Amino acid sequence: MFRVDLNSDLGESFGNYTLGCDAEVLKYVTSANIACGFHAGDPTVMRETIKLALASGTALGAHPGLPDLQGFGRRNMAITPQEAYDIIVYQIGALQAFAKSEGATLQHVKAHGALYNMAAKDRKLAEALAEAVYAVNPEMILFALAGSEMIDAAEKLGLRTASEVFADRSYQKDGSLTPRKMAGAMITEESAALAQVLSMVIKGRVKTLTGEEIILKADTICVHGDGAKAIEFTKKIRGSLLGAGVAVCNFSVQ
Amino acid sequence: MFRVDLNSDLGESFGNYTLGCDAEVLKYVTSANIACGFHAGDPTVMRETIKLALASGTALGAHPGLPDLQGFGRRNMAITPQEAYDIIVYQIGALQAFAKSEGATLQHVKAHGALYNMAAKDRKLAEALAEAVYAVNPEMILFALAGSEMIDAAEKLGLRTASEVFADRSYQKDGSLTPRKMAGAMITEESAALAQVLSMVIKGRVKTLTGEEIILKADTICVHGDGAKAIEFTKKIRGSLLGAGVAVCNFSVQ
Amino acid sequence: MFRVDLNSDLGESFGNYTLGCDAEVLKYVTSANIACGFHAGDPTVMRETIKLALASGTALGAHPGLPDLQGFGRRNMAITPQEAYDIIVYQIGALQAFAKSEGATLQHVKAHGALYNMAAKDRKLAEALAEAVYAVNPEMILFALAGSEMIDAAEKLGLRTASEVFADRSYQKDGSLTPRKMAGAMITEESAALAQVLSMVIKGRVKTLTGEEIILKADTICVHGDGAKAIEFTKKIRGSLLGAGVAVCNFSVQ
Amino acid sequence: MFRVDLNSDLGESFGNYTLGCDAEVLKYVTSANIACGFHAGDPTVMRETIKLALASGTALGAHPGLPDLQGFGRRNMAITPQEAYDIIVYQIGALQAFAKSEGATLQHVKAHGALYNMAAKDRKLAEALAEAVYAVNPEMILFALAGSEMIDAAEKLGLRTASEVFADRSYQKDGSLTPRKMAGAMITEESAALAQVLSMVIKGRVKTLTGEEIILKADTICVHGDGAKAIEFTKKIRGSLLGAGVAVCNFSVQ
Repeated sequence: MFRVDLNSDLGESFGNYTLGCDAEVLKYVTSANIACGFHAGDPTVMRETIKLALASGTALGAHPGLPDLQGFGRRNMAITPQEAYDIIVYQIGALQAFAKSEGATLQHVKAHGALYNMAAKDRKLAEALAEAVYAVNPEMILFALAGSEMIDAAEKLGLRTASEVFADRSYQKDGSLTPRKMAGAMITEESAALAQVLSMVIKGRVKTLTGEEIILKADTICVHGDGAKAIEFTKKIRGSLLGAGVAVCNFSVQ
Repeated sequence: MFRVDLNSDLGESFGNYTLGCDAEVLKYVTSANIACGFHAGDPTVMRETIKLALASGTALGAHPGLPDLQGFGRRNMAITPQEAYDIIVYQIGALQAFAKSEGATLQHVKAHGALYNMAAKDRKLAEALAEAVYAVNPEMILFALAGSEMIDAAEKLGLRTASEVFADRSYQKDGSLTPRKMAGAMITEESAALAQVLSMVIKGRVKTLTGEEIILKADTICVHGDGAKAIEFTKKIRGSLLGAGVAVCNFSVQ
Repeated sequence: MFRVDLNSDLGESFGNYTLGCDAEVLKYVTSANIACGFHAGDPTVMRETIKLALASGTALGAHPGLPDLQGFGRRNMAITPQEAYDIIVYQIGALQAFAKSEGATLQHVKAHGALYNMAAKDRKLAEALAEAVYAVNPEMILFALAGSEMIDAAEKLGLRTASEVFADRSYQKDGSLTPRKMAGAMITEESAALAQVLSMVIKGRVKTLTGEEIILKADTICVHGDGAKAIEFTKKIRGSLLGAGVAVCNFSVQ
Repeated sequence: MFRVDLNSDLGESFGNYTLGCDAEVLKYVTSANIACGFHAGDPTVMRETIKLALASGTALGAHPGLPDLQGFGRRNMAITPQEAYDIIVYQIGALQAFAKSEGATLQHVKAHGALYNMAAKDRKLAEALAEAVYAVNPEMILFALAGSEMIDAAEKLGLRTASEVFADRSYQKDGSLTPRKMAGAMITEESAALAQVLSMVIKGRVKTLTGEEIILKADTICVHGDGAKAIEFTKKIRGSLLGAGVAVCNFSVQ
């Protein structure tokens, strides 16, 4: 029997600013990546998001980012591995305290935006990320780009990992995502995206932009909740998986 | 046999900015209140300060403050009790993760500056502070102004407390500190300050600015490490206590 | 002939966060109060908002606030008059540079949220605000609560002022706004709000919550653009004024 | 007759944190680059630094940096040229308002740290920087690395420039600074540094790390004021220049 997790970035509101349809997307995902106050989120939003996620039975994860609220953590910053380690420990700890105060624990950690992208390719950052997660709680799972340096560094350390795949992004021959500025980076046709999801989850394979079929591990699929259209697509992915007999569940379910 | 703890605010450097003589003052104090990134400190400073404190055998505590780096957390802000709860849980959690990653635990929490002063008198803020500490870890001790709303709220909740006293501040008849802008607020004569410390620790009493003797619980004394003169005074307090047969130790020592 | 200005707070988006329907409300107002990056807004939003306002012929004003993005500048902070002066000079200067770079000048300054409310009653803050505006450009107009310390302090300094009134807030006998937490603070019936506006603009009088009629200067009316309903009400205020023969224009029009 | 300007970064304190010996270094330099609140400095520090610089007759300049207080603006960030333009306009404007409020004007702008280094090589960022300066006030002078893209972009735009050189850094054959991580990047021998300064100012030439002599324009020399040793070296540079008959003055002196 096949199974897969659906994860989404949540708790990205800040102060007077609201972002995302968290309550809505929580109906369909099984793991929540909750922003920790650096690229988005604030202490009040974090507590409220944890309560919301717990009410819907969704597993909790920390979603640490770069200290760049204005850039939403999407602008690369030349931080050292030690600085990366420090900001990740800090953010996981902050979220974990809210989980604890609501009687829960964190299932996973997934880096955000530029931090995720940099650590996917930079071995030193990948190791710093894995070590930070391990240092705070070695029972947590690192969610990371399938085939990335993050996955490899985490496994070398003895950390559990979940290989993340994307429904609406095309892949290169080496298993990396086609850069957004290249033609064909986004899969705009819905049926093609759904077919890619099923192929990745059931066959462990994906057809690249240039037509080859490559092997790709798919433990968790990243979906979005930032609008009615995104929610609709998330529902379809979930429905398509269930229709194909795939169990949609997080990693606390054995 | 009498005993008392000596605590000091530490880890108040930030990025390129250095503040305080942490390594020096750690030779004399038994509990460290470590800034958590809101009014001072940053993730890197927090990790380094914890390592420094552990190396000297000093007990670790979180020192959460208002989100006001420019004002060093010293400007009152009209935050709600819920906002206070949220920023305190966040900051304790962040520091706790560094303690965990270094194989240690937090002994206590002490609020900083305006947050400390506001919660000393405002019952709702005092309760929010106590609840935040309790929610993250009910084993931690709340350090708070002797006789304040914080002490009372924490005890009602079943939290351990440590009543804090000051060597160089004069007291009012009701047990509160003489406001800094009033004449006689600071005790400038060293011998008078040392005598006040001994009286508080051994007799549990202090002579107020207007001459009455009142009862005051003294579990921990706040000392400073922000300059050669402060360090010198801290040494004298410690020497004076030891000379009088008072054990100087933190709360992990039974 | 009667005349009045309509002003609205604009440019309150930040980074990835969007707030308000700026383009829509700019069709109806004559003066724009543009956030300057402390309580809301960022450099990019400031430039874009100025372009938008200039395209609609709306006069530009700086809208400085407290350094509290998370609290949206709505939480009182115990800043000194000197600190108030400094953060106001800073913010006006930043916005003025964008106005200059787009070939325009600032017509006015209006403080935001808690800074506005504190300076309405605190003479020292009111003077600091007036002096900051005067120091940067004595030709600018200070928009401030009718009858407040801000108006008086500015006039003593020789600064032009515009007395601001509110359509949807009830007034006390002394000319102050009924505090939001008191019953009757908000005027919820639309016809009552429109009648109050006409009375203030044409007769220079307003009926207080307790029924007395008091004198109130009305140079500019604060309206909102944070949703479809607010825009609709703004349109009605404007229509009602024009219908009564009142010219709706800013202070650059002689 | 030869002449050269001496510039130093000033106003880098923040809130409770003090950095640099501003009052001391102002005795020896002729142009002050004043931090604008993004990588260092705050509104109060900016006003105080301007007063200090004016009292010593030093010309004022804005020193805008990346929005990274914790990294002191030294960590590269992937900002777009438009974002660079926006943060530079904002910061110049803020400082200019304090200059105006003290009855002065800005002579120049010099980017800080990573922003300076990135714009030295990245043509688009260099153009954005030059355009921002020009948009706020086309009379200002852009201080920039001799031979860099910044100098070229500014001159194309019709902006006045001052080519900056360094006393204690060695140069490469192409006129760029030897990267700090390479051996020989820093000139540690004082006499060699002083000789390099005289050669650059009087002959317009510098001997590279590999021994060739190349042409280099030297309008202004960057010196430091962050400690007793730095101040001492600054004094020696100034004395050495004056001893060789070089006039040490800023650009307001004809």
